[in-house]
Amino acid sequence: MEDYHKPDQQTIQVLRNIANRLRIYCIKATTAAGHGHPTSCCSVAEIMSVLFFHTMRYRPEDPRHYNNDRFLLAKGHAAPALYSMWVETGFLKESEMFSLCQADSSHESHTMHKQHFVEVAHGFLGQGLGVACGMAYTGKYFDKSSYRVFCLMGDGEMSEGSVWEAMSFASYYQLDNLVAILDINRQGQSDTAPLQHHVDKYYKRLEAFGWHAIIVDGHSVEELCKALSQPRHQPTAIIAKTVKGKGIPAAEDKQGWHAKPLPKDMAEMVVKDWQSRITNTSKHLYPSAPIEDSPPVSLRNIRMPSAPSYKAGEKISTRKAYGMALAKLGRYYERVVALDGDTNNLTYSEIFKNEHPNRFVECYVAQQNMVSVAVGCAARDRNLVFASTLSSFFTRAHDQLRMAAMSESNIKLCGSHCGLSSGEEGPSLMGLEDFAMFRALPSSTVFYPSDGVTTEKALDLAATTKGLCYIRTSRHDCPIIYNSNEDFHVGQAKVVYQSKDDQVTVVAAGMMIHEALAAAEHLKKERISIRIIDPFTIKPLDYKTIIDHGRATRGRVLTVEDHYYEGGLGEALSSVMVNEQGFNLHCLAVSQVPRSGKPHELLKIYGIDRDAIAQAVRKLMSSSTNAK
Amino acid sequence: MEDYHKPDQQTIQVLRNIANRLRIYCIKATTAAGHGHPTSCCSVAEIMSVLFFHTMRYRPEDPRHYNNDRFLLAKGHAAPALYSMWVETGFLKESEMFSLCQADSSHESHTMHKQHFVEVAHGFLGQGLGVACGMAYTGKYFDKSSYRVFCLMGDGEMSEGSVWEAMSFASYYQLDNLVAILDINRQGQSDTAPLQHHVDKYYKRLEAFGWHAIIVDGHSVEELCKALSQPRHQPTAIIAKTVKGKGIPAAEDKQGWHAKPLPKDMAEMVVKDWQSRITNTSKHLYPSAPIEDSPPVSLRNIRMPSAPSYKAGEKISTRKAYGMALAKLGRYYERVVALDGDTNNLTYSEIFKNEHPNRFVECYVAQQNMVSVAVGCAARDRNLVFASTLSSFFTRAHDQLRMAAMSESNIKLCGSHCGLSSGEEGPSLMGLEDFAMFRALPSSTVFYPSDGVTTEKALDLAATTKGLCYIRTSRHDCPIIYNSNEDFHVGQAKVVYQSKDDQVTVVAAGMMIHEALAAAEHLKKERISIRIIDPFTIKPLDYKTIIDHGRATRGRVLTVEDHYYEGGLGEALSSVMVNEQGFNLHCLAVSQVPRSGKPHELLKIYGIDRDAIAQAVRKLMSSSTNAK
Repeated sequence: MEDYHKPDQQTIQVLRNIANRLRIYCIKATTAAGHGHPTSCCSVAEIMSVLFFHTMRYRPEDPRHYNNDRFLLAKGHAAPALYSMWVETGFLKESEMFSLCQADSSHESHTMHKQHFVEVAHGFLGQGLGVACGMAYTGKYFDKSSYRVFCLMGDGEMSEGSVWEAMSFASYYQLDNLVAILDINRQGQSDTAPLQHHVDKYYKRLEAFGWHAIIVDGHSVEELCKALSQPRHQPTAIIAKTVKGKGIPAAEDKQGWHAKPLPKDMAEMVVKDWQSRITNTSKHLYPSAPIEDSPPVSLRNIRMPSAPSYKAGEKISTRKAYGMALAKLGRYYERVVALDGDTNNLTYSEIFKNEHPNRFVECYVAQQNMVSVAVGCAARDRNLVFASTLSSFFTRAHDQLRMAAMSESNIKLCGSHCGLSSGEEGPSLMGLEDFAMFRALPSSTVFYPSDGVTTEKALDLAATTKGLCYIRTSRHDCPIIYNSNEDFHVGQAKVVYQSKDDQVTVVAAGMMIHEALAAAEHLKKERISIRIIDPFTIKPLDYKTIIDHGRATRGRVLTVEDHYYEGGLGEALSSVMVNEQGFNLHCLAVSQVPRSGKPHELLKIYGIDRDAIAQAVRKLMSSSTNAK
Repeated sequence: MEDYHKPDQQTIQVLRNIANRLRIYCIKATTAAGHGHPTSCCSVAEIMSVLFFHTMRYRPEDPRHYNNDRFLLAKGHAAPALYSMWVETGFLKESEMFSLCQADSSHESHTMHKQHFVEVAHGFLGQGLGVACGMAYTGKYFDKSSYRVFCLMGDGEMSEGSVWEAMSFASYYQLDNLVAILDINRQGQSDTAPLQHHVDKYYKRLEAFGWHAIIVDGHSVEELCKALSQPRHQPTAIIAKTVKGKGIPAAEDKQGWHAKPLPKDMAEMVVKDWQSRITNTSKHLYPSAPIEDSPPVSLRNIRMPSAPSYKAGEKISTRKAYGMALAKLGRYYERVVALDGDTNNLTYSEIFKNEHPNRFVECYVAQQNMVSVAVGCAARDRNLVFASTLSSFFTRAHDQLRMAAMSESNIKLCGSHCGLSSGEEGPSLMGLEDFAMFRALPSSTVFYPSDGVTTEKALDLAATTKGLCYIRTSRHDCPIIYNSNEDFHVGQAKVVYQSKDDQVTVVAAGMMIHEALAAAEHLKKERISIRIIDPFTIKPLDYKTIIDHGRATRGRVLTVEDHYYEGGLGEALSSVMVNEQGFNLHCLAVSQVPRSGKPHELLKIYGIDRDAIAQAVRKLMSSSTNAK
């Protein structure tokens, strides 16, 4: 068998020793902390030992080096097992591992993306394999390098559909550098996992999904070494039949031991037993060095090389402007990549795809996996990733977005067909809750461009703004309203329409700004002049500019948004304006599930079109005597 | 073959005629409307014809009768194909079908749950099979009846993980009354579907997931009749190899024809061609009558039979109170059922499970499918469904929840471990965005109980409040603060602590109310008295009570919530209070991704504990001179 040298007996023994030391570390640390999942660690002890000291190639002193093999602990609750390996490599001191497990230490206990040996925050369900797919795709197609990606999964999470999205993706793209190890320990959280120890059923499912599957005894170091050394022409799954709590007589394969540290006396007894099984040997194992064939990559200073080239009055939809801007950025930077989920002709990422086909990743109708793949492609700063689909479809990946934000993943997302603009396709395809969702992701930035210029500027700024950025685009054409040389910043609003004697300040973005401009023209005939402010980013929101201008219009402010009331622009502004004196704020938004129809009809029906704006302006003026 | 009488030639011809009339209806309607998916309808013409006029048993005049076989059009964009069948049964007039497809008609075009022959809103991706699972589970285990459930799926959506969650569920529970028909027409939205016409690959995957799979020519009425008549001992999948746009020469199996109505002249030509193929026959087909063996069910007046029996000062977590209240309700009503996703020992739905094992559905770690199954179980008012998991895990099912709200599905959800109370398990398991998510679901009701009494009352009210209700529970024990006979209403806040000279109104619920009470005791020593208001429901929020009491405390109001700022209680209140005069509102919430730790430590670190409340109260008092 290619590459396979059966390890000698001494090596086997050392690997067993490492596995047992892992058990000892994990038991001691979780018992000391009074929480944690020792039984989930014990089932993976041999797997971790073989992976870290026989299979994987990496620099132990530089866990995030780009030439290293990657390792993802999808079953994140087994975190102490991971710490143990880095104690064994010498990267962590044993005392540091203990402090990692202590809730009251200065270290964190589970959210570990800040730790050098962790790619993304752990604790998610069924998200690890999707992230691993993004890394493996990057290794095979972008880096064209030898490093491999290993993902250790639990059997509980095999019920998550996201896992099967990732399985499809991996086989479709023949990710032969990807290895999933399934810890089939039979026990779930509250009950046994549905397939229990039927490893044959896992085998069939994996083979049907295009993987090469191998069943092993997950506690046999020899079998693991052999399986992990097999040649790979497709993604490989090691189905490891294991025992939860292996090595803890009272807990082995027993229910009721999930997330339970051992009582102190039991821990001591068990630790003593294992210590006695560790045999002295003169041999030491060191991880193999990585193959140094990845290109160095820098994502610094990725910026639009030139200003947008739109002319005033020219018409283009913001979704199309997104595709054009992305293709343009891609022209200058090899590491700009785009993902989409079978909607590239709707989001216009197809423009990028047509121009840079080798850097476009079709993720098909699997939005959860698309976001996870984006996170994987962005890991270790290998790529600047833009992923797009309809704005409503991102709700499908809310948990993946949540974990991406938690991991401080540097991904850029674009949701098209926002609000009522999906029109005829009906409400299921209308993104009306995307502000609520994206705003509530910690550290996110939310762009809402209003024309071609602002779309290109948003993309430019998203490229340089660290962390999760969301760009909301609309379906229909609208005229260019900004000069191409206008300077934009995150959190800086623009006044797009004003005169000296403005009486109401209207805050609007996207298609709504064009409705507001039309309302302004109409109101002018009634000798009512309004000021229009484009916030540009909804998060952070430029409260100061809005409040300053609002004050100049006697505190009369109107927001209008193509979004539900909850969690949107109006609420965001209210939360600050509530403590400002002398304001009268009125908010227009969508208050119910819309029907399908032509977009302009829908804007009218749901009260966010030019007429509704004009009417609200008149109302604000008449109620001005009641202003605070 | 059991039950299989090969249909005679005349029957075959009539079924073909119906299929071709379907094509004619769909082409005409979509061309007239100027939008729609005629090519997606044409690939399912024979499938629909055979299902509706040969296979399914139902009352054509009463589409929602509980004895009928159920039909779900998971590929919802083929809606005109469904309308066509109801034209053929006589339930719809042809003119009504045309108006359904018109965006500017008084009917809706795609959101069709209000139509009598539609179970849930269409247009979702990969959600139909999960709903079908809920219906089939109900048929087999709750109704113990003969009706069957048919789900017509597209191949694009087979990439969605939710589909494979449903596949696992169906085989695990041996839903032999469930039939999925896969329309494998090879063409996706922007590109071909990943498995194209490789029906063998679909076959392997379905068989591996425990289904009985049958490959047929999807345009052969004979093959469809035969396959759909096969005996079933497990869920059955008909893999129908079809041609997108079948019968439209210019569009057959061509890309670029998704969601495109035919130009008028092409439509006329094609329609004429089909009309010529429809042969006159004297035979008429009528749907078979259903087997009338389902029990009638009424969900009216399901109410807690007695007041809670908690004693003042007694301690219980709201999650445990949820489990106890649910078990109690289940004791009196046979149609109360509970679902959970491998967290029943955390959410305490295990109390219900232990008491009513036959009405508990374990959905394993597949939250998307759990919500879809809940929708399916609740359809046609067959069950009152409560589904629970950790509050953070519901983000996984955001799109399913969105579609449930759109379908006005009457499901009740409970999310435990809200906010920082997950503590040691870290932020991935903390629900800190659930208000933002659930509030932005149209017509939702959001309960946030603060003790055992309010939890039981919330469950009681959720049972009688139509639509999607969410109950947010906490992990840790807290004392009973309400009298068991206290009367609660949706949207009615309670004053839980007050005196004559209160100086600040504090709005808090859940664990936060106990922090507020502790702060009140502390502040009393400083001769500062505060009023504490429990909103009970976050949506609808009882603005009036809060504002009235806030006014009584000189406009000083403080909200405190175990949630991110965005989309939470503070923003909800701000959006109304912004236009009230003389208020000074301060909001305490979580502003960043938390670390793991002991809950009380975390409340302190993130500034929402008793000390933070007391401090904010003092600050509000000192700034009172600035109040509006």
